[in-house]
Amino acid sequence: MTQSSDDARAYSRANADKFKHELFEMLRIPSLSGDPAFAGDVGRMADWLADHMRELNLQKVAVMPTAGHPVAYGEWMGAGPDKPTVLVYGHYDVVPALMEDGWETDPFEPVEKDGKVYARGATDDKGQLFIHVKALESYLKTAGAAPVNVKFLLEGEEEVSSPNLRPFLEEHLDLLKADVCVISDSSMPRIDEPAITHSLRGMTYIEIEVQGPTDDLHSGFWGGATHNPALALVEILGKLYNPDNTIAVPGFYDDVVPLTQAERDMIAKTPLSEEQFKEATGVPALWGDQNFTLRERVSARPTLDINGLWSGWSGPGPKTIIPAKAGAKLSSRLVGNQDPHKIFELLKSYIESITPPTVHVKVSLLTTGEPALIPFDLPEMRAAARAYQRAWGATPTFTRGGGSIPVVADFYNLMKIPVVMMGYGLDSDGLHAPNEHYSLEMFGRGIETAIVYLEELAQLPHS
Amino acid sequence: MTQSSDDARAYSRANADKFKHELFEMLRIPSLSGDPAFAGDVGRMADWLADHMRELNLQKVAVMPTAGHPVAYGEWMGAGPDKPTVLVYGHYDVVPALMEDGWETDPFEPVEKDGKVYARGATDDKGQLFIHVKALESYLKTAGAAPVNVKFLLEGEEEVSSPNLRPFLEEHLDLLKADVCVISDSSMPRIDEPAITHSLRGMTYIEIEVQGPTDDLHSGFWGGATHNPALALVEILGKLYNPDNTIAVPGFYDDVVPLTQAERDMIAKTPLSEEQFKEATGVPALWGDQNFTLRERVSARPTLDINGLWSGWSGPGPKTIIPAKAGAKLSSRLVGNQDPHKIFELLKSYIESITPPTVHVKVSLLTTGEPALIPFDLPEMRAAARAYQRAWGATPTFTRGGGSIPVVADFYNLMKIPVVMMGYGLDSDGLHAPNEHYSLEMFGRGIETAIVYLEELAQLPHS
Repeated sequence: MTQSSDDARAYSRANADKFKHELFEMLRIPSLSGDPAFAGDVGRMADWLADHMRELNLQKVAVMPTAGHPVAYGEWMGAGPDKPTVLVYGHYDVVPALMEDGWETDPFEPVEKDGKVYARGATDDKGQLFIHVKALESYLKTAGAAPVNVKFLLEGEEEVSSPNLRPFLEEHLDLLKADVCVISDSSMPRIDEPAITHSLRGMTYIEIEVQGPTDDLHSGFWGGATHNPALALVEILGKLYNPDNTIAVPGFYDDVVPLTQAERDMIAKTPLSEEQFKEATGVPALWGDQNFTLRERVSARPTLDINGLWSGWSGPGPKTIIPAKAGAKLSSRLVGNQDPHKIFELLKSYIESITPPTVHVKVSLLTTGEPALIPFDLPEMRAAARAYQRAWGATPTFTRGGGSIPVVADFYNLMKIPVVMMGYGLDSDGLHAPNEHYSLEMFGRGIETAIVYLEELAQLPHS
Repeated sequence: MTQSSDDARAYSRANADKFKHELFEMLRIPSLSGDPAFAGDVGRMADWLADHMRELNLQKVAVMPTAGHPVAYGEWMGAGPDKPTVLVYGHYDVVPALMEDGWETDPFEPVEKDGKVYARGATDDKGQLFIHVKALESYLKTAGAAPVNVKFLLEGEEEVSSPNLRPFLEEHLDLLKADVCVISDSSMPRIDEPAITHSLRGMTYIEIEVQGPTDDLHSGFWGGATHNPALALVEILGKLYNPDNTIAVPGFYDDVVPLTQAERDMIAKTPLSEEQFKEATGVPALWGDQNFTLRERVSARPTLDINGLWSGWSGPGPKTIIPAKAGAKLSSRLVGNQDPHKIFELLKSYIESITPPTVHVKVSLLTTGEPALIPFDLPEMRAAARAYQRAWGATPTFTRGGGSIPVVADFYNLMKIPVVMMGYGLDSDGLHAPNEHYSLEMFGRGIETAIVYLEELAQLPHS
């Protein structure tokens, strides 16, 4: 068997119309994972994907149950054990879409206009996950085989925070065994500026509650000798930061992997200017740790943000109380190799240690997410860069995402394989918004790049 | 004419039952000032009082309009210009009362039980204001004259913060001209521990709003280089206080009249122990300026309390935003001779000066109230003390109230006359709560003390 990426790419171009109509079929199924009324459609979507993979002669195709919506699984292992195995992760569920939110056409009846398909899920993530199915098909329908083994893990709960994905991974580690994981569920600013995300921040999200008096007090009768819980909270929060805007919690930075010069150079390729930042956010001036550039601060450095604050009376007019309680929500964005649970313990014990005896404090953990830091000089990463150069026609930048996608860390930390985030969307696709759409040019280029990537992976040394 | 307080006191005792039934009539009128649906009843209450004063042959009785509920006014000037004039202030309006709040009997159908009258307004303030009407009646029905001139200013908006009282005072300064103002609208801890309040704290109530970005931001995309407005607010609020819990706003204490040793000795007569404070409030430990006793801190010293705090997300679970705004309500309790508007200017300019360039700040004034500090060695105050000794059978303590009753400052500062706060209620009367009640023994003793006070006032030198 010889597999030519050229033949496969030619097939994908020749069948662009067929691929588009198959995508339309997917987009007609309203697979809303967050609304129990649509559970039947979610299941129908998983069945459709399984049927489609069976038609392409994949092996071990199955709709696999979880505690929530099922996983559509399929694998093609015909390249044999001497060749690497790629695990493709995608999600077939979508967020809600209502005409009254501002859709110009039915969100579940795809419409093509100016080279774009308008429908809920077009870019997030049905269009992007289908790219990989069509790449494999292009090999199978030309050479009858692909250069590497491919497994598809298509879940139906990404839009509701994937509550059952990690247990599924843990239960099926053997089945899912692979050498590299590819995820296409992100976007680039412009079609000629592809990017591969190699780092995501993790998270420790906590809630602090300070209590002073048992009930709200009359500030006239008790003010002056009562430590106001809102003031106590303010004092505690103030002590979490140093004057240079770094985080004052002892040990907080201990596990942060220092940025190498090569990494700083890579980050500098996508600079973020003070003007751009102010324009995008509306802030009057910038802030943060002066030892790092703006782009480094928002993507490669850990943070501690107050997400919410509450105490006493916030309605109109005055109310002269000393509130009984004051609370805050805080989230810390973490970078490799900070451990979210260790960070929680550091925060909790520091906050408890600085709480004065005049109030009680309670520090609770709300959620955690592990950071993911995948070195961009791994062979699987460099192969992806070459695939973009060959098929997309542009050199991708390796970027760090400031946000958190916990499933990435799960794949990387649990399965111990590189995760290559090849986002084939555009920032302007309007995901989660009315009139979500997907560029058919991106769809086509994505399929060709995915085809070439499989060939590049096949050429890597494999044990 | 000779007026004997003994005869008047005997009359009041002989007519206790009649007085009680008249009080019942008042209590049956639901004069809720805060609910427009009861405006008719509020007016009916003013009419009832005017009719009652006319029956007692008072002069110049009138229901006088304001921009809100009317004032019931009446005067008896028969003592002549050589004798002092007493202005009695009281309020005939009440706060709401609903059976479902826990009333055991109809709040507007007074019930006598164990020597107490249960009804809304029984102690606050219908019972207490009626004491002075009945004291004057007791003289008029015995000697046909009272030892001093008496004016009644009975308002109907005290429970909604007396928005129209100050304009009324300013408009009718001549009509209301008097030598001393008496107010009975407060309480004592136990029946054998009468108290005269000679100081009340004023207030400057402000709102602070900090704005950073135009809208809430994704904390993953922008966290690390955006000065979180909630943090900026925390930093600002933290700088309002010194480490010794005093207020750090420059000039804040400049106009505070220092406590004399005599005043500190008087305050020490109503000590407040750490145990009492903790028991009453539930706080785990005390707080404040260590240079002053607990009682001094809560009554004779100015404060700055956070009454409310808000920013971002305070609902259940996590939300990973950098809030666009953060806000706080703060109130400062003021003592003589701090000026509430000057304090506002000091707070505003200090807050603006410490706000970093990374956020915008807005400081607004919500309300002010002037402090009132009436020397307890004034002749009118000493006369009140003698009246208690003679009629109540106990020596009153001169106390400082930590709260604010702006009308007191208005009478004192605008009319330039001493205000004597002879509270005839009990702390346990349940004002503003279900099952408010008033002790008929307090009512009777109050009338006799008010009778004797008029006699004591008549004996003061009068120009």
